[in-house]
Amino acid sequence: MKKVFSRREFLSFGSAAGGFVLGVNAGSALSSSGPEAAAAFPWPYKELNVEATKERAYKDHFKSGCMFGAFESLAGQVGGMLGKPYVDFPFALSSYGGGGVASWGTLCGACNGAAMAVSMFHQGETRSQLIQEVLAWYENTKLPVYVPAEPVRVKKDFAMAASLSESTLCHISITRWSKASGMKSFSPERAERCARLVADVAGYTADLLNNAARGEFAPKLSMSSTAAGCLECHAQGKPTANEPEVVSRMSCTTCHKEYHKKI
Amino acid sequence: MKKVFSRREFLSFGSAAGGFVLGVNAGSALSSSGPEAAAAFPWPYKELNVEATKERAYKDHFKSGCMFGAFESLAGQVGGMLGKPYVDFPFALSSYGGGGVASWGTLCGACNGAAMAVSMFHQGETRSQLIQEVLAWYENTKLPVYVPAEPVRVKKDFAMAASLSESTLCHISITRWSKASGMKSFSPERAERCARLVADVAGYTADLLNNAARGEFAPKLSMSSTAAGCLECHAQGKPTANEPEVVSRMSCTTCHKEYHKKI
Repeated sequence: MKKVFSRREFLSFGSAAGGFVLGVNAGSALSSSGPEAAAAFPWPYKELNVEATKERAYKDHFKSGCMFGAFESLAGQVGGMLGKPYVDFPFALSSYGGGGVASWGTLCGACNGAAMAVSMFHQGETRSQLIQEVLAWYENTKLPVYVPAEPVRVKKDFAMAASLSESTLCHISITRWSKASGMKSFSPERAERCARLVADVAGYTADLLNNAARGEFAPKLSMSSTAAGCLECHAQGKPTANEPEVVSRMSCTTCHKEYHKKI
Repeated sequence: MKKVFSRREFLSFGSAAGGFVLGVNAGSALSSSGPEAAAAFPWPYKELNVEATKERAYKDHFKSGCMFGAFESLAGQVGGMLGKPYVDFPFALSSYGGGGVASWGTLCGACNGAAMAVSMFHQGETRSQLIQEVLAWYENTKLPVYVPAEPVRVKKDFAMAASLSESTLCHISITRWSKASGMKSFSPERAERCARLVADVAGYTADLLNNAARGEFAPKLSMSSTAAGCLECHAQGKPTANEPEVVSRMSCTTCHKEYHKKI
């Protein structure tokens, strides 16, 4: 019989002995690396209009790529409303994540940028829960959904295909969309698709951040059935001999299954 | 006969029509999102001592995870020496990338943090080349190499196994190390391994940044033979029918090969 893991069990798995992320509330102690005291961290948030965020993210993508689009439309928009301590913050820093980091096709820049924005406003378990919510939604939602008033790379009546990525990796997400649409990876239509996807991710994240600001954020998405299946063994100390106790919170389920066959 | 791709051909592939990253030198124009003018971006660099950077990264990892370790030991160390404009910069922002972003096992936080640090000092093609150099080295180097004077999670005489990741993904990198070492993913030894790997990545990146500051950076690493093999078809407009023209700069060669079998 399949064991159902609660969200708390799932999250605590990552912070077990030797776990990945240490220093849950280390934010303010860690930010004062300069000779003068830094502003308290995480930084303040102000509720965002979800539709305006999507529009800004869409436009931002064409300025400096997908990670910048997600990050600037969220953190930059808040910064523009609040002024200090955001005034000198270099939002263009996030441009490095375009195309899965310098076009390497690893983590989708929309995911990386949204996660970085969440981290601007939250630390510790709330940060992890919010990011996880974005990543799980991304993997399990046919994207893009957003339709801009004035498309940049396609005609207004273009029928945009939507696809399920089942992964947060740029390469796989784009390949799945290319398969669904019949369009090439290096086409204007694909660039348009990514800009719309960035808008969707930013809008979804803005809504989560708004809920968190109102004290109304409650994790909704459960783990994918594939990942839950992994945890049946891996979280319970039952690795087979010479098989590593793998991390089951892997987002790329296709690769993961293939990888298991290989090892 | 195999075509050899020059670095320039390889890099220009990513910025072809509809490519991922737009606005190559968009930095300074994009950073002024607040009501007041932001400091010019990218921000200034000061040469780092490579060994001191490794030590700082190793210790940082135990404060707030792998991405923080790589990012803070580079950008935070520079900020500590230069003061403005780094004074209010929240280095703890980078903590979100621990364990492959919120422990999801996607992009290795050492890679994500090093890339973010490079982006603090460089934009455009130099940024991409420097990041690529780090990622390619990471995939093709047996890690960890660094041995701390005072190990945090293991005894001083512990024989640390080194492994080849052939991937920039956290999950795969850790799994390969677990296989090489026989140690579990959620063990103190694995945490020690990741801290040392963060030190190696930060040290390698500091050396590259120093070279770039002296005008002596020249890309050294060639693409992996696997990726070069992909480009033979994919960069030359020869996708098979109904097969998407995939991005061949994919870092996870194992998964990639398996994925190709699947589609």
